[in-house]
Amino acid sequence: MSQTKVVIALGGNALQEAGRPATAEAQLAVVNKTAEYLAEICSRGYEIAIVHGNGPQVGRILLASETAANVTPVMPFDVCGAMSQGYIGYHIQQGLREALRKRGKNIPVVTLVTQVVVDKDDPGFRNPTKPIGAFYTEEEAIRIQAEKGYVLREDAGRGWRRVVASPMPKKIVELSSVKALWDSTIVITAGGGGIPVIEKDDGSLEGIAAVIDKDLAAERLAEDVGADTLVILTEVEKVSINYRKPDQKDLSCITVEEAEQYIKEGHFAPGSMLPKIQAAMMFVQANPGKKAIITSLYKAVEALEGKAGTVITS
Amino acid sequence: MSQTKVVIALGGNALQEAGRPATAEAQLAVVNKTAEYLAEICSRGYEIAIVHGNGPQVGRILLASETAANVTPVMPFDVCGAMSQGYIGYHIQQGLREALRKRGKNIPVVTLVTQVVVDKDDPGFRNPTKPIGAFYTEEEAIRIQAEKGYVLREDAGRGWRRVVASPMPKKIVELSSVKALWDSTIVITAGGGGIPVIEKDDGSLEGIAAVIDKDLAAERLAEDVGADTLVILTEVEKVSINYRKPDQKDLSCITVEEAEQYIKEGHFAPGSMLPKIQAAMMFVQANPGKKAIITSLYKAVEALEGKAGTVITS
Repeated sequence: MSQTKVVIALGGNALQEAGRPATAEAQLAVVNKTAEYLAEICSRGYEIAIVHGNGPQVGRILLASETAANVTPVMPFDVCGAMSQGYIGYHIQQGLREALRKRGKNIPVVTLVTQVVVDKDDPGFRNPTKPIGAFYTEEEAIRIQAEKGYVLREDAGRGWRRVVASPMPKKIVELSSVKALWDSTIVITAGGGGIPVIEKDDGSLEGIAAVIDKDLAAERLAEDVGADTLVILTEVEKVSINYRKPDQKDLSCITVEEAEQYIKEGHFAPGSMLPKIQAAMMFVQANPGKKAIITSLYKAVEALEGKAGTVITS
Repeated sequence: MSQTKVVIALGGNALQEAGRPATAEAQLAVVNKTAEYLAEICSRGYEIAIVHGNGPQVGRILLASETAANVTPVMPFDVCGAMSQGYIGYHIQQGLREALRKRGKNIPVVTLVTQVVVDKDDPGFRNPTKPIGAFYTEEEAIRIQAEKGYVLREDAGRGWRRVVASPMPKKIVELSSVKALWDSTIVITAGGGGIPVIEKDDGSLEGIAAVIDKDLAAERLAEDVGADTLVILTEVEKVSINYRKPDQKDLSCITVEEAEQYIKEGHFAPGSMLPKIQAAMMFVQANPGKKAIITSLYKAVEALEGKAGTVITS
């Protein structure tokens, strides 16, 4: 199984513990533990690249910037995303270097600041749904909407928030660098799904406020680098149907066809398991014979060896 | 002169215009202009890597974080540095990609999140001098000093500020990635002088609050990648003696010996031209026969062709 190319998408729990203060120190402690599991995968001979989420982190970067608006200009959301790539990537590369070193593996680890092109006509832009940044009163929301042209929505009784689109990732701008480094280096890329940019009519890129799903970005990357396996890590070891019901059934292996049926039956929660399943399906549909795995960080090694997790095949 | 390997250190004026609002939009506009000059260098066949400063940017990231302390945890200074690498690197790689594309050169450009090791016994730590973050009253300063162990100093009548060390860069942690990418890609690395880390006794790395001089980091990089030329960009076209005096004399070419004499005579301002001269001297002393250039962004192409700037040789 050595030399298998694996793209790993890290979930939020690989970076922060729920209910703990969102300090950098706490994040680094969690990342250092996560790094042990990733290093173990590498030490089994798998060649990996890492994509990570950034929801809580980019939210706090934007919140800090908005809160400090009277003393320093508010950073646009694409820049906040770039900052979160620096922040999270730094921690992962430091932690993973050390976890590898302890195993006698001096494999370089580096984070690439990564832009991801989305289609400016993506249907997501017509109906933005991803809340970002601070909460506002209705009055403030109306003012901001008028002043800045943002779309704001009422968020479950907690106040009004800006919402942005979650368009599909079309192209990883820095893909060639990922490829050039692959053989020698563990690359952390497309953090937070990538900094979203659109390609203008003249071919130039422009950052926009949007949230790209990190599992879909990982899927894009896995296709583009010709990975053998896409691993999507989450909180649970296996995908389930009838999740949290008396007749819950954990799935070890499903085909795209079965997955489609389960989706129709409404087994997977939108914004949670559903996009992971969809990313997994996309990968194996584009690459018949290859596999996608959904599992937990703790079971990832076993899952890669066919002993745990949920495997999705075409 | 083609295929000459050049490390370019960008000064603050390549990123922000003095006196203009420090918005991301304003920075991107300046970076896009800077990118034209850098692309011109590339289109002449020079292979470049880019190191940039981050003083104002990392200061504002920290300021925003400190200002928002009541709503979200304050980020440590090493993390602020990592964020600034994401922020500035994103803009440079977007701007430079476009400037190259307009010239028919589809050369990839990527930013590496970069840690730089400093010696934990660096003499700089005994006398921290670099002010960072917000201004405080004397009372607040005494409280912060007691609570957090920071060193704070009175800053030219404007209030008290935290000061950190400016240690020498010893090792670029992600050097192998810079080397692996060099032939195919323009790399932006060691932004802001790099995220400062110390190597602990067990060999692991730990981020610290410090400011590494970006010109010295560029010098370290130039030595380590075997660059032919180190270019340090600043506001003026040439280094001068008797600067801004009636007998100011601009220098076209100086040796290390001459530079040493001028330093003794006090011609170069500490924290301004002096560290640039010292970085240039270090590079040519370590690499006799190679050259360092100090010039402005606007004269960089001419300077590389020997028609402008100040050349420092051993």
